[in-house]
Amino acid sequence: MMRYASWINESKESFLGEILKTANYEDVISFAGGLPAQELFPKDELKDCFNQVFDEDGPIALQYAEALGYDPLRAWILEQINVGSKTITMEDLIVTTGSQQGLSLVAQTFIDPGDMLLVESPTYLGALQAFQSLKPKVLMVPSDQDGIIPEDLEEILKRHKPKFLYVIPNYQNPTGRIMSLQRRKDLVRVADKYNLLILEDNPYGQLRYEDEKYPNLMDMYDNVIYLGSFSKILSPGLRVGYVVAKKEIISHMAMVKEGMDLFSNSLAQRAVYKYVTGKPLLEHIVKLRKVYKARRDVMIDAFNKYTGDWVEINRPKGGLFVWAKINEIQDSAVFLAQWAQKEKVIFVPGTFFYPDGRISNEMRINFSCSSPEDIEEGVKRIARALSKVKSN
Amino acid sequence: MMRYASWINESKESFLGEILKTANYEDVISFAGGLPAQELFPKDELKDCFNQVFDEDGPIALQYAEALGYDPLRAWILEQINVGSKTITMEDLIVTTGSQQGLSLVAQTFIDPGDMLLVESPTYLGALQAFQSLKPKVLMVPSDQDGIIPEDLEEILKRHKPKFLYVIPNYQNPTGRIMSLQRRKDLVRVADKYNLLILEDNPYGQLRYEDEKYPNLMDMYDNVIYLGSFSKILSPGLRVGYVVAKKEIISHMAMVKEGMDLFSNSLAQRAVYKYVTGKPLLEHIVKLRKVYKARRDVMIDAFNKYTGDWVEINRPKGGLFVWAKINEIQDSAVFLAQWAQKEKVIFVPGTFFYPDGRISNEMRINFSCSSPEDIEEGVKRIARALSKVKSN
Repeated sequence: MMRYASWINESKESFLGEILKTANYEDVISFAGGLPAQELFPKDELKDCFNQVFDEDGPIALQYAEALGYDPLRAWILEQINVGSKTITMEDLIVTTGSQQGLSLVAQTFIDPGDMLLVESPTYLGALQAFQSLKPKVLMVPSDQDGIIPEDLEEILKRHKPKFLYVIPNYQNPTGRIMSLQRRKDLVRVADKYNLLILEDNPYGQLRYEDEKYPNLMDMYDNVIYLGSFSKILSPGLRVGYVVAKKEIISHMAMVKEGMDLFSNSLAQRAVYKYVTGKPLLEHIVKLRKVYKARRDVMIDAFNKYTGDWVEINRPKGGLFVWAKINEIQDSAVFLAQWAQKEKVIFVPGTFFYPDGRISNEMRINFSCSSPEDIEEGVKRIARALSKVKSN
Repeated sequence: MMRYASWINESKESFLGEILKTANYEDVISFAGGLPAQELFPKDELKDCFNQVFDEDGPIALQYAEALGYDPLRAWILEQINVGSKTITMEDLIVTTGSQQGLSLVAQTFIDPGDMLLVESPTYLGALQAFQSLKPKVLMVPSDQDGIIPEDLEEILKRHKPKFLYVIPNYQNPTGRIMSLQRRKDLVRVADKYNLLILEDNPYGQLRYEDEKYPNLMDMYDNVIYLGSFSKILSPGLRVGYVVAKKEIISHMAMVKEGMDLFSNSLAQRAVYKYVTGKPLLEHIVKLRKVYKARRDVMIDAFNKYTGDWVEINRPKGGLFVWAKINEIQDSAVFLAQWAQKEKVIFVPGTFFYPDGRISNEMRINFSCSSPEDIEEGVKRIARALSKVKSN
């Protein structure tokens, strides 16, 4: 018998993985992933960028490189960030193999087995996966439609000394909610009082469909590790993300990254740099906003039309997800496995976003990567599945 | 004060990192890296491969993908491996972000803090870096010019139950040595008796400059995790490596990889597949062998000519490194910092390859990425530094 690390033996087989596999079946409509719309990837422009990289920097781009990443790209990212109130230097930033690696670097740099971490309730499943091999105790901070509740956070901090608080302030995964400005201020006030390190994950911040834009926590508070990514605004297949933090933290992370994968794909880093300096990235983002906003609206209209009072949904002001609650149903995982899948529509059940594994009647529903027709048809199928539950 | 994971506080500042930085100074000759010769990268062919990927699979190659990797590439790798006696299936293989990530996946899948691991003496520095955040106890097995000594291994196994033994049987990093056939047989016999898991790392196996070729441990023994890579035979900037192991292990590693970086750069995986199926990879490898063998010979001749009895060197039958011992000097790290660097030549001192951090008069000297002229000049500089030590 294999002698795995103890956390492996404790982890459950991936029910979710099995569901996600069915997303590839031809006639299944999947709202389960968190995928950008692939028909919008700037394929031809990126192809040109790769060609430029090969022509101008071929041999060096194919060689081993620094763990911190490609300097011109790092400098460009800093320029964007320094538009905020903070002044960041080159030593405060490391490029990562997607922002998921940023989570993993934080985990290895900060977590000893048994350490306490705080997360929102609910929170991003992939963050829990990045943390789990270090065996932390993960505690959820009670949260409402504006994000975590500062008073509840303070109650916890009176009694515990967590390593950090993990938050997605903008268009959170899974709920799609945005943390209000007042909430950000209150959060930072409490964090500062207890010297709490905040891990701010911001993959969706630029995908906003209403006018609001709030400062990043990083711009309001010193003790923040900030994770950014090109996955949602350019392409996830490139695997280019980044971490911004104090120089000392970044230098430890560079050491961890060397052990983890030495450095991130150089061609992709250079191609991203060519792309963002060749043409304003904002033009592309504006296009994404328009398409995703329209898809969100189709989804909300479809729920209103087909599921009526059965399903309560929010109206996310950005990001990729609608968060929905099914009234009169206990467990959305059972609803998925026994009813929705038969109607050939899938989503991620709420239970997966709660580290305590509680039963939930919620579901995360992605609207970015399906056509308006499929969105309408998929919601119809959810409604049909619900009507079968009811009449069962 | 930051509250890092405890292993961070225990790790030393990177003296090696500081040395490696000077490799970029214009007039320094660096034998310190383990870099392939970048003038030999098949830049134009790879550029064509990327273009084909964009033209044929653009949107899907830019999208999120499976942790296990790109199926056609996985199938192609299996075909190559199944030339051996073993029959491997698709479920036994995962693509990694370079083979360094393979080490990191093994670490997170197998190591609990305090677990014992066995390594060769000396061993690859980067493996130690991949393991360290899990805080294992690393024990060196006494080794000679043929690799680890089976009798010593058995003595250890009588008393301890290590999680695994990490070995590089072919042209080891740092020593360049190859494990003889008899030694492989003896090693496997002992491992089998104690049911020892072996982690077989084989980045250099195809870079052989003499006729010998021995079976992989994977082909002689069931309880092996095998790490392969395209870094040395194609390009490290692509970050494409792989792990072969039992299906159950690979499925756990896929879960770990999801937490670590979700999946590896899709464009690179697809471009590697285009490359290897478009033209025999062996043609390129034959070219590499010819150039590297010639450089090895230049290096050995230069040592014989310039350093005489001061330096004892081996004659590696493959790989990227010569392993040298400086007679009448205690500590090659001191020699590097105080003498060799002033002569503008650098290498990696032996101490870094011993997990117990012992003082060593050895040095790892790379011959693959310098021109024959630079190799000769660099060895001359080492000789000059040595003569200054002597006359000091």
